[in-house]
Amino acid sequence: MLLPGSGRTGWDSDGVRVLGVDPGLTRCGLGVVDGRPGRRVALVEVGVARSTAGDPVPTRLLAISTEIERWLTRHEPDVVAVEQVFAQHNVRTVMGTAQAAGAAMLAAARHGIPVALHTPSAVKAAVTGSGRAEKAQVQSMVSRILHLTGPPRPADAADALALAICELWRPAVGAAAGVPTTAAARRWAEADRLARRGVRF
Amino acid sequence: MLLPGSGRTGWDSDGVRVLGVDPGLTRCGLGVVDGRPGRRVALVEVGVARSTAGDPVPTRLLAISTEIERWLTRHEPDVVAVEQVFAQHNVRTVMGTAQAAGAAMLAAARHGIPVALHTPSAVKAAVTGSGRAEKAQVQSMVSRILHLTGPPRPADAADALALAICELWRPAVGAAAGVPTTAAARRWAEADRLARRGVRF
Repeated sequence: MLLPGSGRTGWDSDGVRVLGVDPGLTRCGLGVVDGRPGRRVALVEVGVARSTAGDPVPTRLLAISTEIERWLTRHEPDVVAVEQVFAQHNVRTVMGTAQAAGAAMLAAARHGIPVALHTPSAVKAAVTGSGRAEKAQVQSMVSRILHLTGPPRPADAADALALAICELWRPAVGAAAGVPTTAAARRWAEADRLARRGVRF
Repeated sequence: MLLPGSGRTGWDSDGVRVLGVDPGLTRCGLGVVDGRPGRRVALVEVGVARSTAGDPVPTRLLAISTEIERWLTRHEPDVVAVEQVFAQHNVRTVMGTAQAAGAAMLAAARHGIPVALHTPSAVKAAVTGSGRAEKAQVQSMVSRILHLTGPPRPADAADALALAICELWRPAVGAAAGVPTTAAARRWAEADRLARRGVRF
């Protein structure tokens, strides 16, 4: 979903545009949000990059990579926020997820755009206040934060938007963009601090 | 180490050239070997793509990817053989290894070159006859197979050469290239069959 008039042209230079990437080989969630001083966070585009399950992994990585590069060219984000993948997660899919995350990082590096990694817990805490929030709660809060009239569509791209919001609300980014430090940003900082210490919350 | 006169120009079309990639973020082993009907396997180039441990992962993936693409352009291999990474392996480094393997696969896909994945056990079995061979034994056999006067240099690129030899000796590739089925090729096939059934050997 690309909102009309939300292209990079005319975008104020004091705002921050973030592309969130929820990595996956079969479905890779992509979400672009804008943060401007004194304005609410705004949705720019949300969607999914797909590849065919039966194809060889190199072909699948190329499909995901090509789509992400299209988004980078179209939206010129200031930063790409990627979900941090851990080796302990679902062993069956973790290699594909890690490689899709790698493809996203590589695409950003090719475009000279910095990458931020956020843990799933930090992302949930950023948008709901709890690092253990359910998926429905995350979707609901993403809709509220972005002032959508319904749940984000496609539903499995909601995490990509949550990642982008998480990055936008990082205290340092918020301060740099002149965004006042909110209660949510304070919760984010606390959740992030705990996550980095390895505490589950 | 690039051997003189081993460029792609003049290379007979009935031979098979393989680039082996032993994936890693800090050091990624690269080795190119040629197989021609009725000829011994020949070393073309061996080396290591490096990235700086302190750099951000996207920057490191870009460095590895750029070097692999240079090798693809220089040697135009028929196939790229990459070590298969498993989630159960060293948890501390497995994410970087998986992402470096992904960068290699993506580079091959960009160049339209097919990728073959081989398990470490199958590679060891292909060059030594045992899937549980020690590193020194693999290095020794790589030197013998390629008729080197000493151990492969750099030493940590020996596995990349072993990967390339493993791919070249796959029964199907050997048959396609007119290479007679050797005892080693038969051992490879048996080791590969066992590895695919999840048997450790």
